[in-house]
Amino acid sequence: MTSRISFVILALVVVGYLSVNSQTTGTFNGFQYVDKTGNIRKPADFRDHYELLGTWWVADPTGNQMHMTYASPGAAEYYRKNGKFADGTVMVKEIMKTDHAQMTTGDAHWASGDIQWFVMVKDDKNRFPNNPLWDKGWGWALFKADAPDKQVATAFKTDCMSCHIPAQSTDWVYVQGYPVLKSAK
Amino acid sequence: MTSRISFVILALVVVGYLSVNSQTTGTFNGFQYVDKTGNIRKPADFRDHYELLGTWWVADPTGNQMHMTYASPGAAEYYRKNGKFADGTVMVKEIMKTDHAQMTTGDAHWASGDIQWFVMVKDDKNRFPNNPLWDKGWGWALFKADAPDKQVATAFKTDCMSCHIPAQSTDWVYVQGYPVLKSAK
Repeated sequence: MTSRISFVILALVVVGYLSVNSQTTGTFNGFQYVDKTGNIRKPADFRDHYELLGTWWVADPTGNQMHMTYASPGAAEYYRKNGKFADGTVMVKEIMKTDHAQMTTGDAHWASGDIQWFVMVKDDKNRFPNNPLWDKGWGWALFKADAPDKQVATAFKTDCMSCHIPAQSTDWVYVQGYPVLKSAK
Repeated sequence: MTSRISFVILALVVVGYLSVNSQTTGTFNGFQYVDKTGNIRKPADFRDHYELLGTWWVADPTGNQMHMTYASPGAAEYYRKNGKFADGTVMVKEIMKTDHAQMTTGDAHWASGDIQWFVMVKDDKNRFPNNPLWDKGWGWALFKADAPDKQVATAFKTDCMSCHIPAQSTDWVYVQGYPVLKSAK
């Protein structure tokens, strides 16, 4: 009887440990996608496992776009509690073409067809000072639909900075488009 | 030594059991939001914990809207494998107002300001034959921003059917707007 109780207690301790550990590493473990020189891989299955931060609709006569920004699980909750993104947070901004039709809801447009993905990994520790894709507290990456797993950006300053500089005061992220950073609803 | 191994084996069995059980109940447990007569509550914190199925941009001269459809975790993966939504799947369609500005990405529009939420719960078992909000294999619900936790729809036939009938052949869901139902990417 005593040994059964011991078994159960130990099992519960192990469960608790694994559970806490899994939550911690599962949430902000963005560096699992980064090799030792700072090359970033695009997270697989992010549509299944990441949370939506928000969507941008970009009207463009040459081709409308839908931009969906996802973050690694727990990213928004951490931001709401701490006012900043956790070290290791991953964001994926998915850029898609769109279709449209007059539907019962009105003149509706929806995402259809991949264009490219931007990936950012939060880095509080200046881990890669010699890699030009790590700057301003983030790692930066770009993947295009014709080779969706091939990172093609070369440097933050030439490929990323000009589009993000208006968001410099909010840690280079356009937080106004992300309602979940204010409320989980 | 033998007893240590036993401890570890038992612990792993318990971990495995809890893990599988948690995944199953955590994924398709939509009936936790349904009382015994079929009243549906809106899931709390769905922005943090649900997955995005897709976003609709609805252009309207009287006020553009962004519609984000979320589903309970695992919903898309199950759909990709089985070609249908699992019993107990929950969907939340969040209807928001929008803001817009000329940004570095172009003429950008983003969600800002709640309007209302539609909630659906998949029901394979015709659980509430006498409740007019359960019909066509789903429970249907509506919550408005002025009282976000108060369900205000009265009947599927009067409040829901007319907008959803074009999607009847795809189980009443506009699946064409939901890329993750085809690929987790």
